[in-house]
Amino acid sequence: MRVLGILGGMGPQATIDLYQKVLNYTPATRDQDHLQVLIWSDPHIPDRTAAILYGGMDPSYALCAGAAKLVSGGAECIGIPCNTAHYYLAAVRRAAQGVPVLDMIELTAKAARDCLGTGARVAIAATQATLATRLYDSALASVGLVPMVPSPPEQVIIDDLIFGPSGVKAGFVDANNCRRFQELCVRLFSSGAEGIIAACTELPLLAGSPSTMLPIIDPTSILAQALVSFGLKD
Amino acid sequence: MRVLGILGGMGPQATIDLYQKVLNYTPATRDQDHLQVLIWSDPHIPDRTAAILYGGMDPSYALCAGAAKLVSGGAECIGIPCNTAHYYLAAVRRAAQGVPVLDMIELTAKAARDCLGTGARVAIAATQATLATRLYDSALASVGLVPMVPSPPEQVIIDDLIFGPSGVKAGFVDANNCRRFQELCVRLFSSGAEGIIAACTELPLLAGSPSTMLPIIDPTSILAQALVSFGLKD
Repeated sequence: MRVLGILGGMGPQATIDLYQKVLNYTPATRDQDHLQVLIWSDPHIPDRTAAILYGGMDPSYALCAGAAKLVSGGAECIGIPCNTAHYYLAAVRRAAQGVPVLDMIELTAKAARDCLGTGARVAIAATQATLATRLYDSALASVGLVPMVPSPPEQVIIDDLIFGPSGVKAGFVDANNCRRFQELCVRLFSSGAEGIIAACTELPLLAGSPSTMLPIIDPTSILAQALVSFGLKD
Repeated sequence: MRVLGILGGMGPQATIDLYQKVLNYTPATRDQDHLQVLIWSDPHIPDRTAAILYGGMDPSYALCAGAAKLVSGGAECIGIPCNTAHYYLAAVRRAAQGVPVLDMIELTAKAARDCLGTGARVAIAATQATLATRLYDSALASVGLVPMVPSPPEQVIIDDLIFGPSGVKAGFVDANNCRRFQELCVRLFSSGAEGIIAACTELPLLAGSPSTMLPIIDPTSILAQALVSFGLKD
């Protein structure tokens, strides 16, 4: 078994979601069957959206310091439960000094291709900053999927679900927001999406239990599976 | 704000429960309002019950190594979401080199006294190892409460809820176990308990949302409040 590292806090509830999914995917009947995990949950990392879109403080220093902390604490593989933060992945990988840092976006694009088949139209429900980086557009295109960006009114709903005064980052993982996210997904499917990526780690918190009926793809679950698979290797 | 450390993994689900309660008690409307937390979740720490009752491998080395890891990673205060592990608190405190390690059992005894009043009879729902250490008996007696130990048939139910093949450590935080824990509590109240301490961190997972109606005292919540209070100090 190998030690997992989680570079989290963006937000903290999404970090818990990732660790919960790591536990769920680990075959275990007692404490000792589970993996050792070092979590640095740093909600003080400057806002990624503010940095990318509005020239806010650069979060890469704090991200790199966090990765270095995990490496010196013994992490043998690192996952980052924040899609937008993947814009800084190259810098984080340099800071990790050879310890692998998983690319949640690349893993998600491959999982979406396996789930939906080449050529499918995939909506990206994400922060405006993640969309601006075009990380998902490139990753999806490179596996033969067709990225779809939400319309401006749909994006208003997504931003509000994530950052709004009654959104997930303000602590509202409630029935009302779950219903609003479900309505948004229905709208995206009606606009021609064949699958939806819940491409901000706050959004899977509103998606409930994984459903095999609805093609809503959860990057946090995919990252958790990859971490567990790495951790259980001999 | 100060950096919190969590020495967890005993079990990992209880570690998530503690961190979730830390988030719940933190006044926050955005990521940056939350505290920085370093979590070392080490489910490989040898079983505390086996060590205390049956001469199993001593967990104190792994506990001390974990505390040292948290201190070198910048933790300014440490909480341990495992009641039985508090038997090794003195050793962990030495390993923490002056960084305060909170005593969940002492904090819980004081909270129970504040909630129930001096002289109240308090049942200790815990592992057999925690009972054998008499940590709660001493802590409760020193604040003027009267400790009550479950009867042997009640203890069989508690052990099964924690360690059984369908217990919490095997991943079963389900409606059936919640109902069984509720029935156990009713039984303890019928036997004369005026309050119950859910004195194994797996048990509050079966207690649902905190209730102001039923005097079931949750050491994980009390530890979370103490950590947040420390973290938010100037």
